[in-house]
Order: sequence, then C-alpha cells, then structure tokens
Amino acid sequence: MSHFQFTSQAQTAFQSRFAEQFTVAQAVREQHGRDESREAPVLPDAVLFAHSEQDVIDALRLADEYRVPVVPWSAGSSLEGQLIPVHGGISLDVSGLNRVLDVQPGSFQATVQAGVTYPELNRQLRREGLFFPVDPGAEASLGGMASTNASGTAAVRYGTTRDNVLALRAVLPGGEVVNLGSRARKTAAGYDLRGLFIGAEGTLGVITELTVRLYPLPGHVAALRASFRSIEEGAACAALLMGAALQPERLELIDAGEIAAVNEYLGRDYTVAPTLWMEFAAATEEALAGTLALAGELCGESGGTGLEAAYTEAERAALWEARHKAYYAITAQHPGHAFLTTDICVPLQQLPGMVAYTTALCREADVDASLVGHVGDGNFHMTFHAAPDDAGRWQTIHGIYDRMVTRALECGGTCTGEHGVGLHKRGHLARQHGDSLQLMRRVKAAFDPHGIMNPGKIF
Amino acid sequence: MSHFQFTSQAQTAFQSRFAEQFTVAQAVREQHGRDESREAPVLPDAVLFAHSEQDVIDALRLADEYRVPVVPWSAGSSLEGQLIPVHGGISLDVSGLNRVLDVQPGSFQATVQAGVTYPELNRQLRREGLFFPVDPGAEASLGGMASTNASGTAAVRYGTTRDNVLALRAVLPGGEVVNLGSRARKTAAGYDLRGLFIGAEGTLGVITELTVRLYPLPGHVAALRASFRSIEEGAACAALLMGAALQPERLELIDAGEIAAVNEYLGRDYTVAPTLWMEFAAATEEALAGTLALAGELCGESGGTGLEAAYTEAERAALWEARHKAYYAITAQHPGHAFLTTDICVPLQQLPGMVAYTTALCREADVDASLVGHVGDGNFHMTFHAAPDDAGRWQTIHGIYDRMVTRALECGGTCTGEHGVGLHKRGHLARQHGDSLQLMRRVKAAFDPHGIMNPGKIF
Ligand SMILES: Cc1cc2nc3c(=O)[nH]c(=O)nc-3n(C[C@H](O)[C@H](O)[C@H](O)COP(=O)(O)OP(=O)(O)OC[C@H]3O[C@@H](n4cnc5c(N)ncnc54)[C@H](O)[C@@H]3O)c2cc1C
Ligand SMILES: Cc1cc2nc3c(=O)[nH]c(=O)nc-3n(C[C@H](O)[C@H](O)[C@H](O)COP(=O)(O)OP(=O)(O)OC[C@H]3O[C@@H](n4cnc5c(N)ncnc54)[C@H](O)[C@@H]3O)c2cc1C
Repeated sequence: MSHFQFTSQAQTAFQSRFAEQFTVAQAVREQHGRDESREAPVLPDAVLFAHSEQDVIDALRLADEYRVPVVPWSAGSSLEGQLIPVHGGISLDVSGLNRVLDVQPGSFQATVQAGVTYPELNRQLRREGLFFPVDPGAEASLGGMASTNASGTAAVRYGTTRDNVLALRAVLPGGEVVNLGSRARKTAAGYDLRGLFIGAEGTLGVITELTVRLYPLPGHVAALRASFRSIEEGAACAALLMGAALQPERLELIDAGEIAAVNEYLGRDYTVAPTLWMEFAAATEEALAGTLALAGELCGESGGTGLEAAYTEAERAALWEARHKAYYAITAQHPGHAFLTTDICVPLQQLPGMVAYTTALCREADVDASLVGHVGDGNFHMTFHAAPDDAGRWQTIHGIYDRMVTRALECGGTCTGEHGVGLHKRGHLARQHGDSLQLMRRVKAAFDPHGIMNPGKIF
Repeated sequence: MSHFQFTSQAQTAFQSRFAEQFTVAQAVREQHGRDESREAPVLPDAVLFAHSEQDVIDALRLADEYRVPVVPWSAGSSLEGQLIPVHGGISLDVSGLNRVLDVQPGSFQATVQAGVTYPELNRQLRREGLFFPVDPGAEASLGGMASTNASGTAAVRYGTTRDNVLALRAVLPGGEVVNLGSRARKTAAGYDLRGLFIGAEGTLGVITELTVRLYPLPGHVAALRASFRSIEEGAACAALLMGAALQPERLELIDAGEIAAVNEYLGRDYTVAPTLWMEFAAATEEALAGTLALAGELCGESGGTGLEAAYTEAERAALWEARHKAYYAITAQHPGHAFLTTDICVPLQQLPGMVAYTTALCREADVDASLVGHVGDGNFHMTFHAAPDDAGRWQTIHGIYDRMVTRALECGGTCTGEHGVGLHKRGHLARQHGDSLQLMRRVKAAFDPHGIMNPGKIF
C-alpha cells in the first residue's frame, strides 16, 4: 500500500489551475498506465498534459504541496516499467514540449524542449549537414533518453546520451528551476548535477530543455555485412575491429535464428548464420577505402564469410534490413507470447564468454531466445518469450536472467547497459550497487525531500 | 576563522594509528601548504602519507570522529588553490597509492590506484599498443585528474577525464568504501555517483582506485603547423576543421608573442605569427593521406600559410616544440613576476568573438597577456603576469578576468573548462551556477555530513 493519497483537495487545485489539460478520464489514464514492458498496467489517478515549462513548474509546486506522486511521461517507449505509476498520482505528459528552440550549427549543438524526439530533431538538422547520434530505435524523446541514459547502435562511436547532453534545464519538486551543465564542450565548474539527471528515470525532477551535441554528417559512409560460424566468433571479430582503431560507426551482431525468422517474415534468403554488421565513415573517399580494406581483411581473418558492402543510403538500408526487422520477425513468430529483453553489458573481452555462457544456459533449460548485440560496447540483449500465463516457463526464464546478471557482475559489468532500472531491475541494482544504494537515496532526498518524483522506481 | 580544531586527542589518535606515516614536521607541512597557483600558502596541522586503501579508510574514520578537515593531496599540480588547507587539518598525501593494478588490453581498460600519474600509466601501456589519452601537461595523477575533471590537448578527440573514467572506488568520511560506475563501456544502472566524484576536488571523499578507458595507439599519425594573420583567423580555421568531420587528435593555437618568446628563449626563428597545430591519426596510410589533403586545403582556404607536416615521432616532437615550450618561454621573459592563468570555455562558434573581446580588453588596459587555446574545444587560457606586490596591476588584471567571465557566461560558456574552481573561482562559480549551488551543498552533505572533506573549496 502506498502512503500517498490523491485527495479531492489536490484534485480541485490541479483542476482549477489546469482546466482541460488535466483529466481523470479512464481512457487517457489507461494510455498512461503502461509502457513497452510486460508489466501489468497500473492507472494513475490523473493525467496532466504540460504545454510549457510554466505548466511543469506549477504542476511540481502543487504536487509537492499536496504530496502527489508525479511520473514524467514522454514518448512512452521505455522497457523496464519506468512509467507505471505504482503509487498512483499524476502522469505528467511532457510530449507537448516539442519545440526545437535553437540550432547553433557552428557550435555543433542544439537546444530542444524535452519532448522533442530524436528522429524529429534529425529531420530538422538534415539541412544543416548535422545530426544527433543517439538512436534507441523507438521514437524516443530527448528528455526520456536522457532520463534512461539511452544509447543504441551508434554509441560505439559517439557514446551514450550521457556523453551527448551538454546542459539541461530541470524543474525540481516545489517548482524551482535549475540550469545544469554548460553549453561549452567541457566544464570543470562544480558538481556534475547534469550527469545525475542522466539516467535518473524521472526520480529527481522534470527536464524541460536540453542542449545536445551534434556532429557533421560524415561525407563518406559504407556498411559491411558478414556471416560467422558461431556467435562467439562474430563477437571476437568485433573486438578485433575495435582494437585496430578503425572507429566503427556501428557494430551489430544477431544470431542465426533471427536471420531465419526474417527470411520467413519477409520472404528473403539471407544466409542463415550469425551475422555481423559494420559501418564506417570518413571525411574523404581515400580514407574510407583504406578503412574498408583493413576491416575486410580482419573480418576474413576472424572467420567472416560472404562479405558484402553497401555505399549509397538506399543500398545501406537494404544491407541492414535483417538487423532492423529482427525484433518484429521474432515477435511475429510467436503470436500471443509475451517478450522479455535483457540488457547485460560487460567489458569487451568478456563478451564472447558471456555470450557462450548465456546460450549454454538457454540450451540446457531448453529455452528459446534470440540475441541482438551492440557488440562494440559489450552490450547484448536476449529476447525471451512465453505465453503470458505460463508461470513455470517464466520462472525458468527469470532463473536464467538472474544467472546472467550474476555472471555479468562477476565480470565487472552491469545489469543494464542502456534500458535502465525501472521496476524490473530493482533487485539487480541492489546486487550491483548495494554499497552505494543508501548514498543514492540520500542524493534523491536532496532533490526531492517528500519523495514525490516517480516513487517506487530504481530503488 | 575556522570552526574546526585539531585537538591533541585527535593528534594522539592519528599518531598511534599511523606512527611515522603521520608528521607535523614544518618542512613537510610547507610542501603540502601550496599548489601551483599564486595563492598564499597555509600550513596544514599535519601531513599523513597513505600507503594503502586501508590507511585511507582509517584516516577518514578518525577524521570524521574528531571532526578534522582532510585535504586529499596527490601530484600537487592543480592551479586554483584546491590544495590549500584553509581550515587547517590534515593533508592526506595519496601519491603513495601508485600501483597499476590490472591492465585488460582486450577490454581497452586499466585499473590503477589513484596516485598513479598518467605519464607512468602510459609508459606501462606502451608494450600493449594502448594509451590513456588525457594529458593535462603536468605530471598529474589519475585521482587528481578525476577530481578536477582535467583535460588537455587530446580532449578534442577523446574527451575529458569524465569521459574516460569508467568506474572508481572511493572512501567516504567515516571510512565506508563504495564502488561507483561499472567496468562495462556503458551503464544505465541508477544515479551516476561516479560522475559526481569527477570534478569534486576532494570535497566528497577520497578516490583510491579508478578503472579508465584505453585506446589503441593509432597506426599512422601526422602533425601539421600553420601561421595565421590573426588569432581569430586561426580559431576560425579550427572551427572549420571540426565541421569537416576530420576528427583531429589535437588542435592547439598560440599567439605571436609566445612564438617570439620561444625564439628568444631557445634561439629559434619560428615565424612570429599566431600559430595553429593540427594532429591527425588513422588506421591506414591511405586514410591518413586523405585526411591530411583535406585538412591542408581547408587550412589554406582560411588563410593559413607556411604549412608544415611531420610524421615520425621525433619529427612531430620537433614540430610541436614552440607549443610545448610557450609557457616556460613566457615565464622566463618576466623573472620575479607572478602568473595567473584563466580557463574560459565557450561554445565553438563564440570562440573567435571571445578571443577578440579578450585581446581588446588587454589592449585597452595596456596589459600584457598571452593566449594558449585548446581551440577545438572552445577553451583557451590567458596568462597574465605582474610583480607579486603590484596591487594596482593585479586589480586591473582581475577586472579583465571578471569581464571575460561575464562574457563567457553570456555566451553559454563556463568559467572553467578544465582547471576547476578551488579557492580562486568560487565567486565565478556562484555567478555561473547560483541557481544550483544550494543543491550542490545538499549533495555534499549527503556524502560528508560533518563537512570535513576539503572545506572551503568550490563553495
Ligand atoms: C522497439 C524498441 C526498441 C528500443 N531500442 C532501444 C535501444 O536500442 N537502446 C536504448 O537505450 N533503448 C531502447 N529502447 C527503450 C526506449 O526507447 C528508451 O528507454 C528511451 O530512452 C525512452 O524514451 P521515451 O521518450 O520513450 O521515455 P519514456 O518511456 O516516456 O520515459 C522514460 C523514463 O524517463 C522519465 N522521463 C521521461 N521524460 C522525462 C523528462 N522530461 N524529465 C524527467 N524524466 C523524464 C520517465 O518518467 C521514465 O522514467 C527501445 C524501446 C523500444 C520499444
Ligand atoms: C604546467 C602545468 C600545466 C597544466 N596543464 C593543464 C592542462 O592542460 N589541462 C588541465 O586540465 N590541467 C592542467 N594543469 C593543472 C593540473 O595538472 C590538473 O589540475 C591536474 O588534474 C591535477 O592533478 P594532481 O594529481 O596534481 O592533483 P592535486 O593537485 O594533488 O589535487 C587536485 C585536487 O584533487 C583532489 N584530489 C587529489 N587526489 C585525490 C583523490 N585520490 N581523491 C579525492 N580527491 C583528490 C585534491 O584535494 C585537489 O582538490 C596544469 C598544471 C601545471 C602545473
């Protein structure tokens, strides 16, 4: 039972400030009671649609006064139950904060409202010859990505959201506004409170604006694809490419089962084998040619076969097809099933062993699972599936998941490379950071003394 | 007046635990009462030499119990008064924690004790074909660099210390040990407490170990040097190179006065003009050639003349000579003078204007100053000088400094790109982060409730 209560006084206060931006309509509450995880929905008491920073300020002032939980809600694509309002209260929908405020091409930065999605930002940047590199796949918002420290396929080259947010503006419980970080490319001015908000999953306050780093669109790009005899061999090839200082833009590995699923799903005939994608970019054609020649050589040396290259944007999209459709192909293969995706990340050298360990666990337990790896970062996802009510199967799956986490922590890795903690991984986090969890709680209390911000998450 | 007291009970407790590792000898206290800044020395009550993490644990347990201020002290090269024990207490010298604990070449990471210097780490890594990229110039330690978020000439390509520390171990006041961050290349597991320690200047606890990122030594490297008609023109060229996605390893600019000083100091005849150094690396010779050709073109287009290139390590060292000797040449020109170095960092596009503004201020006030710029990052240092007791001159200099900070903040920049706050920039920090200073204080209290860690710094 939650110690929070959404009183009628609170409701009246919100209604008189926010009128039709504030709603208790069942359908809207249902939309905001779930995320992309398998977690059972829990309805918020109300949903508030913010259109401006002032709305956020007033919302957090009232919420703090009436002790009402607030769950920031943006594009809704998170995977770990981050959005489920387990203590009730208000889902504060910030997707309406959707303006790109300022692009400074010469400084390689843009300032956006928190609800702007990264695909939309990139659409607006194209004419400037610039792009924002973090690409979590779903149509995620910059504020949500900052709050989960999202990454994706390009992190191997450009880092995570953490590395690409220079500054942010946030509203704290009570309504105070703070400007954190600096628009300069580097700063050594006091504590990095900016960094605390990155990955905080809405538990410290609400981000309203972010200044993010941009990069020039590389002049020359090529993608390579090769097949391997085993997934471990593919992972080892990725490690070799990293060691050769080739600076790949992307390095993605999937398993043979997913290729087979894509062939079935789309009627293709891709070689059914573990498959590695490599993407490289350079400022000049000569530089790119040099890189590709060396990459091809290393790929062959590590057992890669059937090497194919693609240059134009259309050719590259075609070459990448099986990678991008893998998740949809797998889910289509198992209608009615629920899916669970892990997010282990380990030091690079440990990756082949970690992958071998995981596939052995699945084989022993006769559990079907598929692997997608951001292998240049040591990060890979296993997607498990079963009928939602097959309790025994889910118990087996969670047993495997647990042993994977144990092994990852033994290797010095993390239970989550990019999806965050939310509700699902609170137990894993306690194992990983047991020694500093109390410190995290004290930091939380410094920002949010009444504990109204997304209670029940992370801890 | 400090509210701390170093009582005889405290002294006895430390002496009985630490014996000859603990000293109140005047000479040793004098060594630890200053840093590389112009700040007047203040002697600590005692100096404690830690040889192990256990020493640090016991020191912070006793210090917390007896409410004794602790100033962590490592290589002693910081520039902003960070080491001055303004509230007395103990200088905790951690330079004895100097072992490289573990190198994992295949994971591109090393774990070191906090007192290891970056040149020593790089000496040990050479045989692995790897290096640690952050190079603040002085023989700084990894723990000190983390605590000031140091960077240097390679940050334009590899980021700051913040970007290159994956995980750290720290001892908190009271003696508790915490492991923060992860050895994986990325993590989304809870609050980034690791990041809080980066730049905290010893005010939260003592770092004992760090796991840092390593990079493969690039196979092919070349340096270029060119002269410009004005410093603004050189800065504009740097911005152009950044925009061309050439990913320079280094981009450094100095002014004509420094070239003249080097010529005099070393008996050289470098062209007396603003001079830009560019360094590029690539995995293959073809890739490097492509990059150099484009860089040369862009340099010419932006007014660069006398372009020279260097390839071997010896050639490159020779080409870089004037940059590396500039500071020594300038100080040699003004014997008996004291020096003050600023550390403004602004968004790239604002750099030429910021530089023009600064040189105009100096000209108007007839103040001699020289400029060194990490121009790919928008960061530049002005070095001012005057006789130590020339109060009027120092007032003029501080007036210029103040207006520089005002302008930098108006541009969205920071008063310190890499040197930190220490004692000198507390006023600047209050102007830059006035809205979040209270929050920083509350975070500090969450780590250090009795305020024993390096009191009087940052705030
Ligand atoms: C098909 C699919 C593929 C995916 N692939 C990847 C991937 O490759 N890499 C990856 O990292 N993730 C991936 N994800 C997960 C998801 O896209 C990320 O977690 C993303 O960062 C969530 O952003 P969002 O805008 O949807 O945030 P939401 O889901 O709306 O919110 C996420 C969290 O942030 C908080 N929050 C949101 N906005 C704010 C704000 N303005 N201020 C404070 N807190 C806020 C919320 O309270 C919540 O805790 C994928 C998801 C899907 C469905
Ligand atoms: C000639 C010269 C050139 C320089 N060039 C640059 C440059 O280009 N870029 C740049 O960034 N800096 C530069 N610096 C500044 C200096 O080298 C950096 O600030 C460096 O990071 C200091 O490291 P240190 O080991 O000497 O730390 P110290 O000076 O010993 O300590 C610095 C701060 O960190 C704290 N500290 C030290 N060790 C620990 C620990 N283990 N745990 C917790 N706190 C700790 C101290 O209390 C202090 O607050 C230069 C300095 C000189 C003298």
